[in-house]
Amino acid sequence: MEDMIRVGLIGIGNMGSAHASAVGGGWIQGLRLDAVCDIDEERLALCMERNPSVKGYTDWQALVADESLDAVIIAVPHPMHATIAMAALRAGKHVLTEKPVDVSVSKAKELNEVAKSSDRVFAIMFNQRTNPLFAKAREIVRSGQLGDLQRTVWIITNWYRTQNYYNSGTWRATWSGEGGGVLLNQAPHNLDLWQWICGMPSEITAFCDIAKYHKIEVEDDVTIFARYENGATGVFITTTGEFPGTNRLEISGTRGKLVIEEGKLKWWKLDQDTQTVSREAGSTFSFQQEVETIPQTIPETAHAGILQNFSDAMRFGTELLSPGTDGIFELSISNAAYLSSAKGSVPVALPLDGKEFDALLAKLVEASSEKNGKADKMYNTKYHERWQIRW
Amino acid sequence: MEDMIRVGLIGIGNMGSAHASAVGGGWIQGLRLDAVCDIDEERLALCMERNPSVKGYTDWQALVADESLDAVIIAVPHPMHATIAMAALRAGKHVLTEKPVDVSVSKAKELNEVAKSSDRVFAIMFNQRTNPLFAKAREIVRSGQLGDLQRTVWIITNWYRTQNYYNSGTWRATWSGEGGGVLLNQAPHNLDLWQWICGMPSEITAFCDIAKYHKIEVEDDVTIFARYENGATGVFITTTGEFPGTNRLEISGTRGKLVIEEGKLKWWKLDQDTQTVSREAGSTFSFQQEVETIPQTIPETAHAGILQNFSDAMRFGTELLSPGTDGIFELSISNAAYLSSAKGSVPVALPLDGKEFDALLAKLVEASSEKNGKADKMYNTKYHERWQIRW
Repeated sequence: MEDMIRVGLIGIGNMGSAHASAVGGGWIQGLRLDAVCDIDEERLALCMERNPSVKGYTDWQALVADESLDAVIIAVPHPMHATIAMAALRAGKHVLTEKPVDVSVSKAKELNEVAKSSDRVFAIMFNQRTNPLFAKAREIVRSGQLGDLQRTVWIITNWYRTQNYYNSGTWRATWSGEGGGVLLNQAPHNLDLWQWICGMPSEITAFCDIAKYHKIEVEDDVTIFARYENGATGVFITTTGEFPGTNRLEISGTRGKLVIEEGKLKWWKLDQDTQTVSREAGSTFSFQQEVETIPQTIPETAHAGILQNFSDAMRFGTELLSPGTDGIFELSISNAAYLSSAKGSVPVALPLDGKEFDALLAKLVEASSEKNGKADKMYNTKYHERWQIRW
Repeated sequence: MEDMIRVGLIGIGNMGSAHASAVGGGWIQGLRLDAVCDIDEERLALCMERNPSVKGYTDWQALVADESLDAVIIAVPHPMHATIAMAALRAGKHVLTEKPVDVSVSKAKELNEVAKSSDRVFAIMFNQRTNPLFAKAREIVRSGQLGDLQRTVWIITNWYRTQNYYNSGTWRATWSGEGGGVLLNQAPHNLDLWQWICGMPSEITAFCDIAKYHKIEVEDDVTIFARYENGATGVFITTTGEFPGTNRLEISGTRGKLVIEEGKLKWWKLDQDTQTVSREAGSTFSFQQEVETIPQTIPETAHAGILQNFSDAMRFGTELLSPGTDGIFELSISNAAYLSSAKGSVPVALPLDGKEFDALLAKLVEASSEKNGKADKMYNTKYHERWQIRW
């Protein structure tokens, strides 16, 4: 392999144009933007003007077939992610896809099979995994320092969006164009971190409110109740209808508690296991409690961090922070949530088979009012602050 | 009426003995402890030793029939509250009952009918209503300063209890003796404040985990999902199995948000309605946001405050902070939660008819392992810090 990875970028809408700037501008070590693709010729021309040395494609299949490229970055509407990723992997390309990995678990499973039989690097843009507080929480929980998991509660309601935002792309907030609402577009980051830190739930019950705050055909307000295999429970709350909203993750275990909020991780550490004390204590008991507050001292590297990690994985075999095969996890939660809610908020077991959701989605897509798959009319050249973690 | 209200206290267990100290010790203006009643003669003798001038009863009906008494305070196990309260009101006594008002909505309805046709003062010990932060939150929400209600989330998990606590009274944590678990014993305060501040939900879905952390026959871990008539949603989470636990109430509206936590009320005030902005804004928008933090500067008056208010209501016609007829509200939520959970976490509409819950409770009581209705063996003479709001 050459020193510089030659990258083809598919989709230069809102997110893709920011990736074009990052890679095209030489911000990511080891990556070089060699080709871009968009069905919108005007947008494509503008991008090529800003990156005069790149090749332009309007057909993603042609870009994937371009033998001069080593890697493909996918930033098209969600329902195309897996299809393009599979084609690219089969064409011998390394792949980084935007989140979510696709809109259905069935598609994600198919893609994961292709990825497993490939020797290419396959990553997904879960940029919030680069936040040091979430990484620390994962380390605390996964190492057992919090004892047995008892409860997780994530209130992540600071995704306020206006009607104008939803109107900015014809694919937005439609079942056919996007495959869902806040669970598919905004919350995938949080759903992924939730399972990355706490592990996957074994059952999901969800209350998805469709078009509660906007004229859209998908959900913009969700409460999920989760059960984990050990009996622990969880709640996940999200919406695009509230302001200022909240971003607060609380995790309780038998050896303490942690809360991430307002750019700080607060960690209560106990000297004893609460369940042992509960069983064995007499009429009095006491816990020694140490409380540590860990502020976020370094910024998350975010999208650039994931791109750099992708580059390093291709060049040096560095471990992926966000393997593409992980994309199925948060998608399983959101698929299960849609299924649960559509069936009257009944419990849905995980892992998800996927077929029942496919049938539901097919029905929703058939009735969808989306007219075409064009991307947004916005053209930002830098990573917008809207995509950073906000406290 | 004489200057001093002559009080008869029924039940001198854990809570009642503290009331005996408060009233018997002359801490409450206008109240005088004239009689006490308990089925446990040893406990009764000890209480009379400490309050030499009071009359002793082992039969609550005899105390209620005592014409020298003006008022009755009820602090017996929950399933007896309404029966005694009704008898006392009918005997012309003023009544203050411990929470919950009873264990079933049907009983509470019956009692409310009796109370409405009586000219006596009828109060309930929702002592947390005396907390200035909750009172302030109620004022903000009820005055419309938060706009339209969008969401309420109360994480109230700092009710940690050991097995030893549950073993301290034979009635504890049994369906026959207590009528429920954390929802009937610890959480009534919070369920009441929840509805006192935000209004009653119109629908409840609940996930009640029985004996999750203790050898008991009732629930010790609960997640409730609520819907309000205007479409707002709510979550209420409580348990006696976690330490240190959390006490955090968040309320979101279209004109801001408030959070009560760690002895502070934090209030985000917006200059515009978020839903108007959502509908009307162009590609950019901004909110002017003022954030006010209101610390709790004066302590809650708690049990003594409710007793004083009860006394003032009887003597001067002062408005009750916690009318006994309000007891039905939080009980409706917990009854609905039990019903929902027993039926597989299906939605249950409020107001509750009550009959379906009665049938469920009768079945649970029949299978109950409680052997007798004796109160706790503990005898505290002062208001224990365990009964104060803990942040």
